[in-house]
Amino acid sequence: MAIPKKIFELSDNFSSLPGIGPKLSNRIALYLAVTNKKLAVSLSRSLEDVVNSIRQCGKCFNVTDIEECEICSDAERNSNTILIVENALDLYSIEDTGVYSGLYHVLNGVISPVNGVGPTDLTINELLSRCKELEVTEVISGLNPNLEGDSTAMFIKEELEKVSSDIVFSRLAKGIPTGGSIEFMSTRTIAESIQSRDNL
Amino acid sequence: MAIPKKIFELSDNFSSLPGIGPKLSNRIALYLAVTNKKLAVSLSRSLEDVVNSIRQCGKCFNVTDIEECEICSDAERNSNTILIVENALDLYSIEDTGVYSGLYHVLNGVISPVNGVGPTDLTINELLSRCKELEVTEVISGLNPNLEGDSTAMFIKEELEKVSSDIVFSRLAKGIPTGGSIEFMSTRTIAESIQSRDNL
Repeated sequence: MAIPKKIFELSDNFSSLPGIGPKLSNRIALYLAVTNKKLAVSLSRSLEDVVNSIRQCGKCFNVTDIEECEICSDAERNSNTILIVENALDLYSIEDTGVYSGLYHVLNGVISPVNGVGPTDLTINELLSRCKELEVTEVISGLNPNLEGDSTAMFIKEELEKVSSDIVFSRLAKGIPTGGSIEFMSTRTIAESIQSRDNL
Repeated sequence: MAIPKKIFELSDNFSSLPGIGPKLSNRIALYLAVTNKKLAVSLSRSLEDVVNSIRQCGKCFNVTDIEECEICSDAERNSNTILIVENALDLYSIEDTGVYSGLYHVLNGVISPVNGVGPTDLTINELLSRCKELEVTEVISGLNPNLEGDSTAMFIKEELEKVSSDIVFSRLAKGIPTGGSIEFMSTRTIAESIQSRDNL
């Protein structure tokens, strides 16, 4: 006696999503098949909507349902500064702070030889073209401060230097998160926060 | 600048699923919108399939894509024994062991005043009718051994006694799981495993 094929297929689809294992995907499939068919219908329609309407902005690769995203088409934004992010979720997290008024560039990932992602799989060439075109004076790396993020930032820095020697390349400060406990920070984080200490 | 409405709706739908929080649902929605549209299409179709084809068996309430589930329509199964489970996932877990050859009855939940689930929200009346009709001699509780599962089992036991005094009511053994460590078991589990000890 096996689980009905259609439920198995649904569970299989769910288990291909990030963060969902086989046990949870079974539970979700059964929940949608029996307990909450209304949500199944709503989810199916919502997926169709996204497939049909969402694209990446032709300039910065942010997700959008229009040709050029709201940020790129906003004349108020400072077009001399570009902040690079791994994906649109990071972009929205930064945008939520309200302290950044320049443009963004979504890389669609980071360089990761282990996962077979090289520079040409990302939108680095498009970034270089935009820097020339917009006469950018500062590029800020908003990549995660880990091995892959750091080496991707270094690669981009070198490519930018070939394009122009006038572009300042910076990155988000590393340190102890506000509200965090020194006790729970890694040795490396503490060491870097000492080296990059700010004057009070 | 807000996340496009369609992505927000998709994320919202995902966060209504069991086990998926708002951070993960955002990540999944973006993954489907940008990285893996093919999976979005496949998931949408699979949901539609399940909505259109899956129902509950008219007898035991197992999930099925036919009128009567494979177990109920199998003449080889022992129809004098019914094992009650909370949901179809538990049924499949028990079925996977291969040691049970009787019928099942899916309750569609357990009695839980906190969650507003009473006996009439479950398939208890249908269970009582089946017990009479099939001349059942043993009902086994395969409900989880927690407060709600135990009290639901007790309620069903009392209802069964009203129907017939000849039905044996048993439950799955409580004890230390095979491969488990006594060190990590609760005092209550250890106490119960002493009281229900088996002769070697």
